[in-house]
Amino acid sequence: MSRADVIVIGGSAAGIPAAISCRRRSPEKSVLVIRKEKQVLIPCGIPYILGCIGSPEKNLIPDAILDNNGVELIVGKVEEIDRDKKTVFVDGGEAISYDKLVLATGSLPVVLPIPGTDKENVFFAMKDVDYLNNMLDKVNKARDIVIIGGGFIGVEFAEQCKRNRDNNVTIVEMLPHCLQIALDEEFCLEAEKVLTELGINVLTNKRVQAILGNSQVSGVTLSDGQELKADLVIIGVGARPDTELAQKAGLQLGARKAIIVDRFMRTVTDPDIFACGDCAEKYSFFSGKPSSTMLASIAGAEARTVGANLFNACYQNGGEVGVFSTIIGEHAFGCAGLNETAANREGYDVVTSQATAPDKHPGCMPGTTQSKLKLIFSSDNGLLLGGEVSGGVTTGELTNIISACIQHKMTAYEVSLFQMGTHPVLTTSPIAYQLVNAAELAVKTMQKVFVNLQREVQRDLTAALTR
Amino acid sequence: MSRADVIVIGGSAAGIPAAISCRRRSPEKSVLVIRKEKQVLIPCGIPYILGCIGSPEKNLIPDAILDNNGVELIVGKVEEIDRDKKTVFVDGGEAISYDKLVLATGSLPVVLPIPGTDKENVFFAMKDVDYLNNMLDKVNKARDIVIIGGGFIGVEFAEQCKRNRDNNVTIVEMLPHCLQIALDEEFCLEAEKVLTELGINVLTNKRVQAILGNSQVSGVTLSDGQELKADLVIIGVGARPDTELAQKAGLQLGARKAIIVDRFMRTVTDPDIFACGDCAEKYSFFSGKPSSTMLASIAGAEARTVGANLFNACYQNGGEVGVFSTIIGEHAFGCAGLNETAANREGYDVVTSQATAPDKHPGCMPGTTQSKLKLIFSSDNGLLLGGEVSGGVTTGELTNIISACIQHKMTAYEVSLFQMGTHPVLTTSPIAYQLVNAAELAVKTMQKVFVNLQREVQRDLTAALTR
Repeated sequence: MSRADVIVIGGSAAGIPAAISCRRRSPEKSVLVIRKEKQVLIPCGIPYILGCIGSPEKNLIPDAILDNNGVELIVGKVEEIDRDKKTVFVDGGEAISYDKLVLATGSLPVVLPIPGTDKENVFFAMKDVDYLNNMLDKVNKARDIVIIGGGFIGVEFAEQCKRNRDNNVTIVEMLPHCLQIALDEEFCLEAEKVLTELGINVLTNKRVQAILGNSQVSGVTLSDGQELKADLVIIGVGARPDTELAQKAGLQLGARKAIIVDRFMRTVTDPDIFACGDCAEKYSFFSGKPSSTMLASIAGAEARTVGANLFNACYQNGGEVGVFSTIIGEHAFGCAGLNETAANREGYDVVTSQATAPDKHPGCMPGTTQSKLKLIFSSDNGLLLGGEVSGGVTTGELTNIISACIQHKMTAYEVSLFQMGTHPVLTTSPIAYQLVNAAELAVKTMQKVFVNLQREVQRDLTAALTR
Repeated sequence: MSRADVIVIGGSAAGIPAAISCRRRSPEKSVLVIRKEKQVLIPCGIPYILGCIGSPEKNLIPDAILDNNGVELIVGKVEEIDRDKKTVFVDGGEAISYDKLVLATGSLPVVLPIPGTDKENVFFAMKDVDYLNNMLDKVNKARDIVIIGGGFIGVEFAEQCKRNRDNNVTIVEMLPHCLQIALDEEFCLEAEKVLTELGINVLTNKRVQAILGNSQVSGVTLSDGQELKADLVIIGVGARPDTELAQKAGLQLGARKAIIVDRFMRTVTDPDIFACGDCAEKYSFFSGKPSSTMLASIAGAEARTVGANLFNACYQNGGEVGVFSTIIGEHAFGCAGLNETAANREGYDVVTSQATAPDKHPGCMPGTTQSKLKLIFSSDNGLLLGGEVSGGVTTGELTNIISACIQHKMTAYEVSLFQMGTHPVLTTSPIAYQLVNAAELAVKTMQKVFVNLQREVQRDLTAALTR
């Protein structure tokens, strides 16, 4: 029977960094990745296969990254985990024993519980090269495309389906707005405006009740009775943890059907088995409550935590902040942490503030885009809870600066004195820099809150004393 | 005699944010800005007047920004400060009294102590519209341009002078490399390669000994005797604090000839007078020692600290981190904190690490640039001391993420678990993200350092016990 010190099951956004981190942190340990797929797709790149990237084959993670880090690879399906014998069984029955096991089995697209999802020309974000080649071919031939789901993946599919093609693309979202789970209403409206300007039809507050057609899709029916013509449907309504193997091995799942792990990313059931990425339960950075945010970037951070903890548990995962970004046409959006709606829902009293400025300076610099930044602070203690950005190509990294400030538990007072570098061609001007200005405006508002609070206390005291 | 609660002398990168911050933090106070210039230039935009921006008039800070924040403005020269009477005298003798005074008088270009700097067609980065219009006109007509100084300003002048013009541009730098004060050698070499590819001649390790010509410049002589033909010379060798007024008022200057302030940005001489920006002495974030880094972005952070402290001193300036970025052609460079050379000079034992990856993912995404990131950590405690970036348009904000990590005193261990958001079109992939990978590689190196240290201790102990 063969053996590896560490076996990682899964070789994508969680499995790869887990294996590499383990090799970096414990170079003396042998690490083996076992994955089902012959070729691994970049998960976030899938919508872009239909447009900017052009083919699934151009959207692969090269295996060299494993080889370069001294990680072994087996392509095969793990059928079973024998926890007592610390052994996994691959495909035909090959047994490989481990000292530590990492589950990075990812997620599967959610299939809507409506009739017709099995018809021809109904597609999901499947991580499979042949499947996506077929999808690309069919998108090229389609006339009327309906995208079910207006979250990030749905919006990205819609934008890429429309790009350079003469077709009709319609997004159907059941919530009042596209991207609503990530962004506050004003940003959602901005995104919907951009989508509409690109010629994409946006239907919100609508549910798809059925997918119509014989063997092949011909349309969809909405809950209000409306029928939409469609020769192709893409369903992008989220993902669910792939925990088949974990369940079979008796590992405990949480409320969100993901593998329960402790703060060290160890499964609570077996201290020699770790889990990370979409298959592992997540906790909110803010409330510590279970969360169902699935992102390749979260998977990566969790995987690196696993790599660091496998043989010497010492890093606690502080919980997921949740950092997203996307671009629709030339217009990018990003968010980190809690948006205003989410913060209110979590019970925070918040102060929000906003600053808009050109992303270069002066504003006449060629290629300048207006960039809007909103910050959300707890009015109890001034802590930064979240931020949203809309703007140009630096939006993704600007959102990451907000994430850095959140992770370091900065208050509005501290953010307002943030030291950034600026340059005419690369950033907003130092005077207009949105992050510090929004923070300073929040401080101004909070001072008012404090003054009013003081006045109230004073009034209460006066009332009490004169009673 | 008129009066303002707060008078700010100077209306540029320090004066404007100081005035605005004061209004935001203390809305009940009246704020008056007094400045010499009829129109205020964006200081960092000056080189770009010669190229991307096209004219000084397009590179102005609009006065509306003061008006919108309820700040009064007088254009005039403050001749004197009477500290006892808390009064300033403007031009013809108008007296205006203050409760708090903020000096934001900025800096003046350093004039080299060589013959010929007063000749026609010798220019400096003067913050004056007419002067710069003349400079632009002369640059358009020049054939052979010599730039003295290969720091950021010199390199930017050279790149903009060359842009869309058929001329010869030569940079003369006295140090071994251009940009050497900010960047480590490998990045300097990269920058020099880009400059050369753009057709700019780079002469390093050379000093200009004299500027030749009759009334008008005709060339320069270098210290090795070489003569360069030149019909236009730009001197960009730094700036010195403009402290004329402060000196006249008896305010104490420091070793670097700037106004000495305490951590609250109060002058040490007079508790009702604050100073910020280029005219105020700076302290290193790392060592607390006086520093001569002058940047509009530092001016802004100091100014906001002044605004917050004027009536209720409560924010200490933690010292300047020093965050720069620039772009040469399509190739951007950035640095935050101490580079390796500076860290060594300051006496740190350092561990450095580096990661390079495409700034979008997959690497075939249109518009992708390779982006290299280097981090410098103290090997004593793993603290992040600095970082350098070379890459595309997100380089400026990536450098600001490093700055956030430095300001929050993150260690390599913490940076390696940083939670960023990623997107195919906007950022590097989550697996390849340079910040976390470089940090993880540093951890790997540091582990080796610790192990070796342990071995040494063990050997010493064994030696001691067997003696």
